[in-house]
Amino acid sequence: MSKARTEMPEGFQFSTVEAAIKKPGRKDLALIVSTREASMAGMFTSNRIKAAPVRLDMRRIRTGIGRAIVVNSGNANACNGDRGMKDARETAELVASLLGIDAGEVYVCSTGVIGKPLPMERIRARVPELVHSLGRSDIHDVAAAIMTTDTFPKVLSKKIRIGASTITIAGVCKGAGMICPHMATMLCFLMTDANIGHPALDAALRAAVRSSFNRITVDGDMSTNDTVLIMANGLAGNGPLKEDSPNLRVFTETLTEVATELSRMIVRDGEGATKLVEVEVKGARNDRHAEKAAYAVANSLLVKTALYGNDANWGRIMAAIGRAGIDVREDKTDISIGGVKIVRKGVATGKEEEAAGILRRGMTRITVDLGLGSSSARVVTCDLTEEYVRINAEYRT
Amino acid sequence: MSKARTEMPEGFQFSTVEAAIKKPGRKDLALIVSTREASMAGMFTSNRIKAAPVRLDMRRIRTGIGRAIVVNSGNANACNGDRGMKDARETAELVASLLGIDAGEVYVCSTGVIGKPLPMERIRARVPELVHSLGRSDIHDVAAAIMTTDTFPKVLSKKIRIGASTITIAGVCKGAGMICPHMATMLCFLMTDANIGHPALDAALRAAVRSSFNRITVDGDMSTNDTVLIMANGLAGNGPLKEDSPNLRVFTETLTEVATELSRMIVRDGEGATKLVEVEVKGARNDRHAEKAAYAVANSLLVKTALYGNDANWGRIMAAIGRAGIDVREDKTDISIGGVKIVRKGVATGKEEEAAGILRRGMTRITVDLGLGSSSARVVTCDLTEEYVRINAEYRT
Repeated sequence: MSKARTEMPEGFQFSTVEAAIKKPGRKDLALIVSTREASMAGMFTSNRIKAAPVRLDMRRIRTGIGRAIVVNSGNANACNGDRGMKDARETAELVASLLGIDAGEVYVCSTGVIGKPLPMERIRARVPELVHSLGRSDIHDVAAAIMTTDTFPKVLSKKIRIGASTITIAGVCKGAGMICPHMATMLCFLMTDANIGHPALDAALRAAVRSSFNRITVDGDMSTNDTVLIMANGLAGNGPLKEDSPNLRVFTETLTEVATELSRMIVRDGEGATKLVEVEVKGARNDRHAEKAAYAVANSLLVKTALYGNDANWGRIMAAIGRAGIDVREDKTDISIGGVKIVRKGVATGKEEEAAGILRRGMTRITVDLGLGSSSARVVTCDLTEEYVRINAEYRT
Repeated sequence: MSKARTEMPEGFQFSTVEAAIKKPGRKDLALIVSTREASMAGMFTSNRIKAAPVRLDMRRIRTGIGRAIVVNSGNANACNGDRGMKDARETAELVASLLGIDAGEVYVCSTGVIGKPLPMERIRARVPELVHSLGRSDIHDVAAAIMTTDTFPKVLSKKIRIGASTITIAGVCKGAGMICPHMATMLCFLMTDANIGHPALDAALRAAVRSSFNRITVDGDMSTNDTVLIMANGLAGNGPLKEDSPNLRVFTETLTEVATELSRMIVRDGEGATKLVEVEVKGARNDRHAEKAAYAVANSLLVKTALYGNDANWGRIMAAIGRAGIDVREDKTDISIGGVKIVRKGVATGKEEEAAGILRRGMTRITVDLGLGSSSARVVTCDLTEEYVRINAEYRT
């Protein structure tokens, strides 16, 4: 997406500075501010070990309102004991006092290495500049500042008409590794000028995340820092979207589209990945079975390395389904790659070469029909390459 | 272990031939025969998709007796529909008729690619030679013939005295990838001259496998073909070991030692692996929690790549435990690598450099103390390298 074409909702300002959090040479501290108080909703990692900023935000989000999000890359501020929470709080307070707002309206997010204290002296020194230069950065600068092992910045926006009003939803996210069921080392900030209260916004966000960020996997690992936050400042002037408004569905659909496209950018940028593959399991006995089977295939190292090698190795898909802990019958199972049926009722059709040709194109879908029921699930994954190993063996060293 | 020093139990004969099952140039069909009828016990993959020979053996093992095991590498004979079962049966029948025994006393094992029919014309042509050359191969030849991506053959034996008798237990196994909780692409054949009936042998085998082959992981993938078979022919002349014999404990301990050492050989030969690491979780609320946490760490791609990079990255260990679905409290968790405590009560001790030095030695233990209870579990794993990806991306191509 070219920078020029990202249309932004009214009333959001951005700023980025270099605080040399991990090392100098890049902007690594970003600020997003809504010019007026916004409705807010958030979703967070389900990892039992949660970074300090996640614990802070989980408390603050209960108010349903907010004004600002301050984010750093280079350090996750996770597993730093009491000091982690003290540092997260102080960062919010510094921003709040310079903005002249309540500290409870400032949300904090961090991404990077676990277990190293934040370099607070450098953050303290840079926050004034961060606040004073608000408006001098755009959303693309924020996208760049929050990257860790990402190879490209991830930004998207969409417009919808609701009644006489035009509403814009924009999003920015980061993530490339530790990407797993139920959120990832993944931060996503969504902004909209829609007029929508917290309960409706919360419902819309939950629906959008369920089929986007909660349906991707890079490596089966789940981060301590995952956060999706949405701010809605009402400047579009639409009649308020409530839980029973028919227009809430339209808003939710668009929000889901934005979240889905952003989540696919994360998988496309999966560490070392060369392929984006959607795994669809259908014909399952129930939703839980469909989901477990889809994740078993999407997270199998043997499936992921076969995808990398352009090998339509359905035996590995079959083995992954077999160990997923679900009902499966070999003689009822069909498998297709990009629409080419390679297994019918558990037996090879001889079309593996054709399917391998599809894999070489770099983006496809694996469909498994279990033939036992009517439930289905989709998960987006990527291949596993030497480069993934290299990146993660060398990440800190 | 040098070939010369493998002491074998009485009454077992071996044979290997080349049947060019995947490709010509190596022996890939092996036969193990007990000169007299043996008590047998077996354990098999818990994958719902089971290869034809596994399904055949699972039925036969109910008799508790057997005479021969015929094994091929290069083809798993899995997911071949009715033909797979027909081929497994025919292989057993060919061997049985040439040995002049009942087909029900012949067990069949296969390992290799899934979903390709066995080249039965070549197997049929080679079985007579296989049977006629019995005694011309030894256990090391069998170990070599059953290898797939293994880089070294895996053989071990131990002796014990029971009463006035000397009993020998020998084992041969293969496996390097698709190694996972509850058995792997892993075949193991154990032989002993102990006099022991099926119920006691079965109990001993279950105990031995529980803490050996069911406690290793290379890649979290589970095979359709995993099999452990034990044959006991009674030639040592000891008084029969029964379920209530005090000597059964001695036998089981030695069997467990043999199984544990063989299982560690598999992890040491993990595809592309450079390190063997034991993950021990203690202080868990219950056994299930300890086991889940140990596997979450042992299977984490981020932990495994960090091990490869000699990076004492305890943040990734913490994140893996946090997503294991167990009770965990950051401020109660201690982590050590090779005895060096790197995390105390959830906070870094600053000894990461020291721990990294231990990782460089290639073999170590990660200990996680959850500080919540008294249950513990151990899992043996290896690191994840570019070579693993290369092997598995290129396995079929």
